[in-house]
Amino acid sequence: MRIVAALGGNALLRRGDPRDASVQIGRIREAMRGLAAAASGNELVITHGNGPQVGLLAVESATDPELSAPYPLDALSAQTQGMIGYWLARELRRALPGREIVAVLTETVVAPDDPAFTHPTKFIGRTYPASEVHRLQAEHGWVVRQEGAAWRRVVPSPEPRGIVELPTIARLVDDGCLVIAAGGGGVPVDPEHRGVEAVVDKDLTATLLAERLKADMLLLLTDVPAIMRDYGTADARPIHQITPRALRALELPDGSMGPKAEAACRFAEHRQGAVAVIGSLTDILALPSGSAGTRVENENSRT
Amino acid sequence: MRIVAALGGNALLRRGDPRDASVQIGRIREAMRGLAAAASGNELVITHGNGPQVGLLAVESATDPELSAPYPLDALSAQTQGMIGYWLARELRRALPGREIVAVLTETVVAPDDPAFTHPTKFIGRTYPASEVHRLQAEHGWVVRQEGAAWRRVVPSPEPRGIVELPTIARLVDDGCLVIAAGGGGVPVDPEHRGVEAVVDKDLTATLLAERLKADMLLLLTDVPAIMRDYGTADARPIHQITPRALRALELPDGSMGPKAEAACRFAEHRQGAVAVIGSLTDILALPSGSAGTRVENENSRT
Repeated sequence: MRIVAALGGNALLRRGDPRDASVQIGRIREAMRGLAAAASGNELVITHGNGPQVGLLAVESATDPELSAPYPLDALSAQTQGMIGYWLARELRRALPGREIVAVLTETVVAPDDPAFTHPTKFIGRTYPASEVHRLQAEHGWVVRQEGAAWRRVVPSPEPRGIVELPTIARLVDDGCLVIAAGGGGVPVDPEHRGVEAVVDKDLTATLLAERLKADMLLLLTDVPAIMRDYGTADARPIHQITPRALRALELPDGSMGPKAEAACRFAEHRQGAVAVIGSLTDILALPSGSAGTRVENENSRT
Repeated sequence: MRIVAALGGNALLRRGDPRDASVQIGRIREAMRGLAAAASGNELVITHGNGPQVGLLAVESATDPELSAPYPLDALSAQTQGMIGYWLARELRRALPGREIVAVLTETVVAPDDPAFTHPTKFIGRTYPASEVHRLQAEHGWVVRQEGAAWRRVVPSPEPRGIVELPTIARLVDDGCLVIAAGGGGVPVDPEHRGVEAVVDKDLTATLLAERLKADMLLLLTDVPAIMRDYGTADARPIHQITPRALRALELPDGSMGPKAEAACRFAEHRQGAVAVIGSLTDILALPSGSAGTRVENENSRT
């Protein structure tokens, strides 16, 4: 089976974790032991988030007294792909000795006229008190929005339209390599290969990658065991199987599950006979067979 | 012809250049236009330095108030591979439309008992006044040495012993891809795939890569047109062709030419019939044919 697995940011860093390298390496080691089990007998492509990492680098770059301007977001996103890709590859090699494993730096094409550029929505980096908002806007040109009691920078999150390295990734997967690609959603570029100041949603890029690689399964790994029906009520219960149409009709709470549900629906809609699974990394061995997680698939795909 | 080209740090950033992203992107765009010409009709693998970039990130990480410890050098080196690899790939694609180009994150194996670990020699990052030396040693555990009038951090620079992604790089080159690999000398790891706090010399890694890929030519690109005989005297004149034995007998001035000469000698010694060329990126079109630069080759290789 050909599987594209998208690791949520929490596989690398959980809410409240300090952002030190040692913490992330420990989390990644644990995650790679789990993924190694799923790699057995399957073709596997791994992608990952980079939210906390790119946020940290953006703050460091913006406050570096040696620089007259902070590094652009595409360059910082490429930095996180390098670092996280290295950590994933290294820890996977320790868990899967003898397997050919490679991290491919990946660019994602976005449209310059994507409406996201006039309506930035993606929060990145640390929070700031209201008193700092004006300075951040004036000094760095950032768009800053309120999130809860604090303020954070927001950046555009345009739709992924293409994956520049797709032919190379496909070639490597066909040859039996385990490939790490499109980390952080891929570094955004325009169709003329110019860098773009944006962050692409990693689950939507994972869907595009899975579609174009003709994958059989898209695994969206997070820290909750399944999508819940009636979440937050006494009737809350996990959904084991659902069609994209029924999932789109559900009212899901805001936050990380929305993009995951959208990514899963798109994959099931675009790849007849294929399945998207949303679930917890700790259930990794049970997810492909359907004994854990939420399976999103069309009615005619059901067994 | 199969060529491995090593871009000196000055192709990305020259002495005195501000370290802003825009400056580096401008330099890289120019360099990639030159390399694109050399790519025509040849198999090409590109590697690059990362000294100023990893130095900048090391200082940013060491002064980040959010972190309880700075990120280790291997992680920062992987960050620079991500960023510079992205810039090189992007600009090469603009110069070579239609060619399959990919940047592969690369790890270099070093020996844990390499003498470099007890004798760190490689300067990285900014300079500090003498008054800060004690604080830097105490706060970050850095080894700090005098360089000219100022002080800088020094880190171990162990010998490259192997390239983890070699089978993948070879596969991609065989398939006609233009590959960017082993940036900054590769991220140093030990034979058990653990990260190592060191920086590997990029020219020595380029030699190892060129040997293992059975390249016909190793191009060591810098900002001087050739190795000079009697450098710094009125008799100074460029060397057009030299054997490794004669080059090793020369007394070269310290600095960047030493590692380049060593890398060129090793390649010519280990690959019978192959040639190493040291020269200026601005002469790129004349270097492969021998009408510019210094050719290092064995006597029985000469035409």
